Amino acid sequence: MGSDRLFVTDCINEVNNRLEKLFDEREIEPKLYEAMWYSVSAGGKRVRPVLSILANRLVGGEMEEALDMACAIELIHTYSLIHDDLPALDNDRLRRGKLTNHIVFGEAFAILAGDGLLNMAFEVMLDNALRHRENLENHVLAMDYVAKAAGVSGMISGQTADILNEDVDEENIDINIVDKIHINKTGKLFAAALCAGAIIGKSTREEVLAVETFGRKIGLAFQITDDILDVTGTETSLGKSVGKDVEAKKMTFPHVYGLDNSIKIADDLIKEAKDALQIFGSKAKDLIMLADYLIKRTN
Amino acid sequence: MGSDRLFVTDCINEVNNRLEKLFDEREIEPKLYEAMWYSVSAGGKRVRPVLSILANRLVGGEMEEALDMACAIELIHTYSLIHDDLPALDNDRLRRGKLTNHIVFGEAFAILAGDGLLNMAFEVMLDNALRHRENLENHVLAMDYVAKAAGVSGMISGQTADILNEDVDEENIDINIVDKIHINKTGKLFAAALCAGAIIGKSTREEVLAVETFGRKIGLAFQITDDILDVTGTETSLGKSVGKDVEAKKMTFPHVYGLDNSIKIADDLIKEAKDALQIFGSKAKDLIMLADYLIKRTN
Repeated sequence: MGSDRLFVTDCINEVNNRLEKLFDEREIEPKLYEAMWYSVSAGGKRVRPVLSILANRLVGGEMEEALDMACAIELIHTYSLIHDDLPALDNDRLRRGKLTNHIVFGEAFAILAGDGLLNMAFEVMLDNALRHRENLENHVLAMDYVAKAAGVSGMISGQTADILNEDVDEENIDINIVDKIHINKTGKLFAAALCAGAIIGKSTREEVLAVETFGRKIGLAFQITDDILDVTGTETSLGKSVGKDVEAKKMTFPHVYGLDNSIKIADDLIKEAKDALQIFGSKAKDLIMLADYLIKRTN
Repeated sequence: MGSDRLFVTDCINEVNNRLEKLFDEREIEPKLYEAMWYSVSAGGKRVRPVLSILANRLVGGEMEEALDMACAIELIHTYSLIHDDLPALDNDRLRRGKLTNHIVFGEAFAILAGDGLLNMAFEVMLDNALRHRENLENHVLAMDYVAKAAGVSGMISGQTADILNEDVDEENIDINIVDKIHINKTGKLFAAALCAGAIIGKSTREEVLAVETFGRKIGLAFQITDDILDVTGTETSLGKSVGKDVEAKKMTFPHVYGLDNSIKIADDLIKEAKDALQIFGSKAKDLIMLADYLIKRTN
């Protein structure tokens, strides 16, 4: 276990260093750079890029080829946080223990920084694809996967449904909707991170489907854990405002299923997620360790 | 000239029909769909997609292969308008003769609709690339071109500089900055539309450079004409608020060079743009006709 944990730490360091280089390489207007980098460097858990690199490694890929795809997915995740925190959306003032982007840089720059990060994610992936022309078709397939997961039939649709389903009273709760919101908001990008890594690593169709199932299930469990922590956690431990979901009567799992049931659902999802990786045998131990960490976390 | 004008009209119809299909093909949350489609269907001039298709045709490409790339560029342009109109940015209430997106759908949906359109642009280009695998490398090169033009070293950087350079008094005007803002805001995406079309059509390096020069110059002329119309036009003829640039002391050409000089600069740019197409001979007549139209327009 020791060496696996080290590999995950290595991954995180590689991602952080590479993100810094990707920013340094670009000619970005200084204040925009500052706003973008503020949120990218705000100390996220780098779960999505690590998943992507681990899935790539699982099927025999090379870190060098997978790293930029992983970083691009983190850029997409970061842009979504900046825009979600805006006053017109979730109106949050705290994120990862720091003031949110629009509080520090103003709304105009938070909007532009988010736009810039989403666009930059595709620049990074496309440049990386062009550096690996012998594997170009897989890069395009992987990008297509990520684009769909991040888009209007994925993450953006989840955020939309989230907003539309605020202020719902108990008697009007639709259990199918809360599942769908979470799958779209988190599950699909988790799955895409894994699938993209695997596809670039020249995985078989069966392997892609396995990591996709794993990704959707841990993504959903991750989001449920987030919702649980919004109820049970503290602002200090989480680094973000708590109790806001309840206040906004958001369609969260604790709101719909109650706290104890939500914990059980998350546990079951993690079990099912691990089962999906059986075809890989012991090679999947890094991903399994990560899945366990994701619901045991306290922030 | 008659048949060329017809071909441009055909292009516009093809783009409009294809945009409708691209929306219909997708599973988009109804209110988000409505917000996105509202701005996409708001009757833009479709200049960028037409340029892209004409450049593709100029080098012997097929409309079928170039159409989705052209539509994607229009989606990018539309997202940029929605976000630019937001209260935190230009705070516009009128665009293309209609209320702006955030006035109709609220700020949250205007932000999400913009995000959705930018992301969808890449989905559309990637899907199109995967339908033309025999020409995959050119598609990736074309996408890379578009991504860079739209991003933090292109359009987004132009918008950033635009905001940062509001409220500048006469004595502090830097002529280099106004050029740079316009090249980034408009010139680069115009050029990218042309280059992407040409690259997909398997153009030579010389041909790409020629349409790139043409694109930058007509893009700059187009933006200068926009600024001139902001001074000389009416809200009715333009379908958007006028006089706002002056009020905000924006770094526009009329503000920096005066009205008469700005008209001359735009004329000269169009002449230089046409010169850049000499290598194509009479085959470039559609593009030349379009260049003339762009500065003679009144809206």
